[in-house]
Amino acid sequence: MHLDPSPLQTFVSFVDDANAAGNFTFHFLSSAVFVNGKICKDPKMVTADDFFFSGLNRPGNTSNRLGSRVTPVTVNQLPGLNTLGISLVRVDFAPNGLNPPHTHPRATEVLVVVQGTLYVGFVTSNPANPNTNNKLFTKTLYPGDVFVFPEGLIHFQLNVGKTNVVAFAGLSSQNPGVITIANAVFGSDPPISTDVLTRAFQVDVNVVKYLQGQF
Amino acid sequence: MHLDPSPLQTFVSFVDDANAAGNFTFHFLSSAVFVNGKICKDPKMVTADDFFFSGLNRPGNTSNRLGSRVTPVTVNQLPGLNTLGISLVRVDFAPNGLNPPHTHPRATEVLVVVQGTLYVGFVTSNPANPNTNNKLFTKTLYPGDVFVFPEGLIHFQLNVGKTNVVAFAGLSSQNPGVITIANAVFGSDPPISTDVLTRAFQVDVNVVKYLQGQF
Amino acid sequence: MHLDPSPLQTFVSFVDDANAAGNFTFHFLSSAVFVNGKICKDPKMVTADDFFFSGLNRPGNTSNRLGSRVTPVTVNQLPGLNTLGISLVRVDFAPNGLNPPHTHPRATEVLVVVQGTLYVGFVTSNPANPNTNNKLFTKTLYPGDVFVFPEGLIHFQLNVGKTNVVAFAGLSSQNPGVITIANAVFGSDPPISTDVLTRAFQVDVNVVKYLQGQF
Amino acid sequence: MHLDPSPLQTFVSFVDDANAAGNFTFHFLSSAVFVNGKICKDPKMVTADDFFFSGLNRPGNTSNRLGSRVTPVTVNQLPGLNTLGISLVRVDFAPNGLNPPHTHPRATEVLVVVQGTLYVGFVTSNPANPNTNNKLFTKTLYPGDVFVFPEGLIHFQLNVGKTNVVAFAGLSSQNPGVITIANAVFGSDPPISTDVLTRAFQVDVNVVKYLQGQF
Amino acid sequence: MHLDPSPLQTFVSFVDDANAAGNFTFHFLSSAVFVNGKICKDPKMVTADDFFFSGLNRPGNTSNRLGSRVTPVTVNQLPGLNTLGISLVRVDFAPNGLNPPHTHPRATEVLVVVQGTLYVGFVTSNPANPNTNNKLFTKTLYPGDVFVFPEGLIHFQLNVGKTNVVAFAGLSSQNPGVITIANAVFGSDPPISTDVLTRAFQVDVNVVKYLQGQF
Amino acid sequence: MHLDPSPLQTFVSFVDDANAAGNFTFHFLSSAVFVNGKICKDPKMVTADDFFFSGLNRPGNTSNRLGSRVTPVTVNQLPGLNTLGISLVRVDFAPNGLNPPHTHPRATEVLVVVQGTLYVGFVTSNPANPNTNNKLFTKTLYPGDVFVFPEGLIHFQLNVGKTNVVAFAGLSSQNPGVITIANAVFGSDPPISTDVLTRAFQVDVNVVKYLQGQF
Repeated sequence: MHLDPSPLQTFVSFVDDANAAGNFTFHFLSSAVFVNGKICKDPKMVTADDFFFSGLNRPGNTSNRLGSRVTPVTVNQLPGLNTLGISLVRVDFAPNGLNPPHTHPRATEVLVVVQGTLYVGFVTSNPANPNTNNKLFTKTLYPGDVFVFPEGLIHFQLNVGKTNVVAFAGLSSQNPGVITIANAVFGSDPPISTDVLTRAFQVDVNVVKYLQGQF
Repeated sequence: MHLDPSPLQTFVSFVDDANAAGNFTFHFLSSAVFVNGKICKDPKMVTADDFFFSGLNRPGNTSNRLGSRVTPVTVNQLPGLNTLGISLVRVDFAPNGLNPPHTHPRATEVLVVVQGTLYVGFVTSNPANPNTNNKLFTKTLYPGDVFVFPEGLIHFQLNVGKTNVVAFAGLSSQNPGVITIANAVFGSDPPISTDVLTRAFQVDVNVVKYLQGQF
Repeated sequence: MHLDPSPLQTFVSFVDDANAAGNFTFHFLSSAVFVNGKICKDPKMVTADDFFFSGLNRPGNTSNRLGSRVTPVTVNQLPGLNTLGISLVRVDFAPNGLNPPHTHPRATEVLVVVQGTLYVGFVTSNPANPNTNNKLFTKTLYPGDVFVFPEGLIHFQLNVGKTNVVAFAGLSSQNPGVITIANAVFGSDPPISTDVLTRAFQVDVNVVKYLQGQF
Repeated sequence: MHLDPSPLQTFVSFVDDANAAGNFTFHFLSSAVFVNGKICKDPKMVTADDFFFSGLNRPGNTSNRLGSRVTPVTVNQLPGLNTLGISLVRVDFAPNGLNPPHTHPRATEVLVVVQGTLYVGFVTSNPANPNTNNKLFTKTLYPGDVFVFPEGLIHFQLNVGKTNVVAFAGLSSQNPGVITIANAVFGSDPPISTDVLTRAFQVDVNVVKYLQGQF
Repeated sequence: MHLDPSPLQTFVSFVDDANAAGNFTFHFLSSAVFVNGKICKDPKMVTADDFFFSGLNRPGNTSNRLGSRVTPVTVNQLPGLNTLGISLVRVDFAPNGLNPPHTHPRATEVLVVVQGTLYVGFVTSNPANPNTNNKLFTKTLYPGDVFVFPEGLIHFQLNVGKTNVVAFAGLSSQNPGVITIANAVFGSDPPISTDVLTRAFQVDVNVVKYLQGQF
Repeated sequence: MHLDPSPLQTFVSFVDDANAAGNFTFHFLSSAVFVNGKICKDPKMVTADDFFFSGLNRPGNTSNRLGSRVTPVTVNQLPGLNTLGISLVRVDFAPNGLNPPHTHPRATEVLVVVQGTLYVGFVTSNPANPNTNNKLFTKTLYPGDVFVFPEGLIHFQLNVGKTNVVAFAGLSSQNPGVITIANAVFGSDPPISTDVLTRAFQVDVNVVKYLQGQF
């Protein structure tokens, strides 16, 4: 799997308050320089709160076009995850709510449903034999069911029940990243050229423009 | 963090049925030879069920001395996790239920409480300065609270509420392993010599024998 | 980046001829058991040819719908790459030839153009700020130009010149994998449900069925 | 095993003298900001002494309660180890001297006895079958004997001869860390709650208080 | 293989212009402090040019003693390679041009010949059996031929044709490093003592001095 | 550093006795198939002896041309090191004994002198500036002195005292490998072509033939 760099000391939770970190950090955060990952905190200043995050009891707001919401707990929300190679998310779905086809470029996801009925699937990478297709694996999940979405593969989740769905998932990176296929392909800034998209999707320019118009 | 080896192909979920795997596997499983990790399945034979596990909706049985139960979903329960570097557990606690001090030699744990009130803590590794102590970090967690237990550190969880506690945790290995301190130190087979334990815990042999007697 | 497992000895090039490997391999290859990666060859039997591949001087056949062809030199074509964490490809483009939007779930790609004019681009993962878009980075490459496509990101290449394009690329895995977005999303077997795709792409079912019809 | 991040250049030995590193380092070291690992030195300023440490010929002072002393040569003592993933220790034991049960959260240890007779052991992680115990592996080592303590497992060493013991050990991290079980469990600051310890060790509060009193 | 540390965010291309990076970087670059790898750029400031390098169409200047020239495209020339674990080189050879025996301490190399005839080889590490020799593997490569030089092994390339040779190679590190054996052994600064070299090469001091005199 | 694959279970010590491993292993070892690393042993069959090696108290036989002897304790001698990423060696030197210039393609070495006086050095990889030389770092070590030889760099050790030298070293791989420069360059089987060596070392063919004649 993707490998996050590892800890070289017990504490590497980071500073995100310039004042707390003094003159240097002030210069640092006010500059155009960033590091891969995070600036570590003085071990002597670390407290239990650096390993703590609250709020996953509150349903995410699903009043949006897709009827779903991901609430992430990555190193960006929980400093204590720095260098530890794991993160957590809560996902909420209204009835018919969809987490649309997407990939995590840096992580595998293992999801558990705690409420509702969730239809999930992922598509494999291209087959060695060009005459066959990418394979779709799907499953309908009920409370207590667990499903794995292997690193880098396109996957989705759809609420196929009458009630809200609540799920939690662990991801194998402190900062997994997410690429929503439709937004990346048809909604990028600037847009991907219609020459590329018409050829790729084998449709005429109007269909592509129509698709781009949605984003 | 600990690093599990990585996938070199899309599917490496393993075979645990000799018959399904034919003559070779029969020889293999009937021999005294084991591989690091698992034997991979023929990609053409993989199905969605290789990435699926069910039953985390059922409370673990906490009718035991400690009043807690960990239900693991590692590569041993969910073949599709093979080489993906992550696993999941459900932890149940009766009132006063304890998950006693333990370490995961191969993983960091990130835990979310979904029900009840859980007092958690971990102890840091030895300080550089021998005149100071190992530091204890603790927190009382309520539903929706998340806490990180860094790789290899001793940690524990205690139900301090009046109701059952239900928690889920992600771990950064497909097979994190667990070492329960009391069992490993006072309950190993054969027992650790009393010469070692009396010196280590600075108590007389009767106290050590008494402690060993509990396991 | 993705991490392939590492060599534990100088030679781990693999056997792909059952007869060459004797009785065991016969049992092995005739069974439904596969290992993660490859079976290693007896070091004493390794020759220079295990580290050799020929034919990248021949243009790939671009007589296909997209007008492009990728000729891979991965561990599947070149056994000596086993455990070494790198592979190579040649990419040919007829005029207007397209290598459509795709990702490599296990590798970064660094490409050099040796002939022709190639328009390339990649799209970043989702922004932290949901009100902004995935960013597209593009460049028109001429002979001798080099471009990097970071691991896991969606990227494409289009011949925008009047002549054929020839390019070589290195990839940071012995078996990078490829996911062609259009085929994976609209051409999987079985197809992704229209409920998912209509919601994801915000188009009506006829547009989705039309798109699926192309694959 | 645990994986330390790797070198990206030949020299990454670090600076621990603010004056040597000028204005920036002064700001840096005077701030509350720390990095994971060490600040690298200007390659042009590196000398052979950055790869050198002396003093392992001198016996460690064993005039302490346990009659043993570990003299570490980690990245904290030897800057040149930065990013190289290995360290060394000398361990001295007076007759009956004990290196009490402990773990290294980030390293495997391989030890060689150069003088004396040393009884060593480690305990495995919990068995899959809850009705069995953690297994203890022990061996009595004489000069020239080598023993391996796998990453993250609880292990100990006891001088069972009439003379001093001298041993050297290699560890698979530049900063392995150490957790002495008794100190971490009964001597942390603040102490672990007696509710936790009485339940974990199945003894009454007086025994726990007595044990805590020793540390 | 050697493992470069991995990305923790989408962009970690670095800054090499103090002015572009403001006050902090000025302090930074003017100090004696260096980091392992590179300082990352503000993601908002990243452009396509950070992933772009040009000039590999121009033959390297082979007007030198060896008649060969390596033109590297590593993280030092192409910031966008930072943390991505791969790099690229062009190698030019005049007739009889030689890339003399060398190693890459941090990378495997996979080379493709695009023009000319190249005789290549590598030598294996020492055999387990001291009575046997290091093994040499050689091959004569023609346009389109690919050859692998495993990580850390001594290898060389010689133009054995009548025309110039042009080759490209991918390497499995963002900064592979190179050690030219003859220069390192006979041309170091200061020189390796003749006591060492006469014994190592089993020749008298005049031969060693003569060899050293060439560098 | 080089990264050995990691353990996925507590025990992966391997089997090297076909009879002990039954029918499968018989087929296996009698075939031309080898795995990367070792076949793991049934955890239930593992004993303390799998983690034990003896004999490093006996001086290595230095009655050879170089007057030195390396006694390795790698995974080949000590099965319990399998997947743990570390090994150990004892090195003996007669007066004037030399461990000639060599590299470890897969490991960093950290050495401690326990007896005698040892002159050690390593040479850096090629400088960025072609007009400067590879740098030599040397040190004379006395008992208790420790020195680091970074991964992949050419290094040597020479006894410059009147008595034997005894040293121990830890290496950051279970199977570090060694390449003795003189043997690999002038003593390979078959020999490297004199065309290559005369150009590389800038000497005439007679000098090269003379050097080759020594091996």
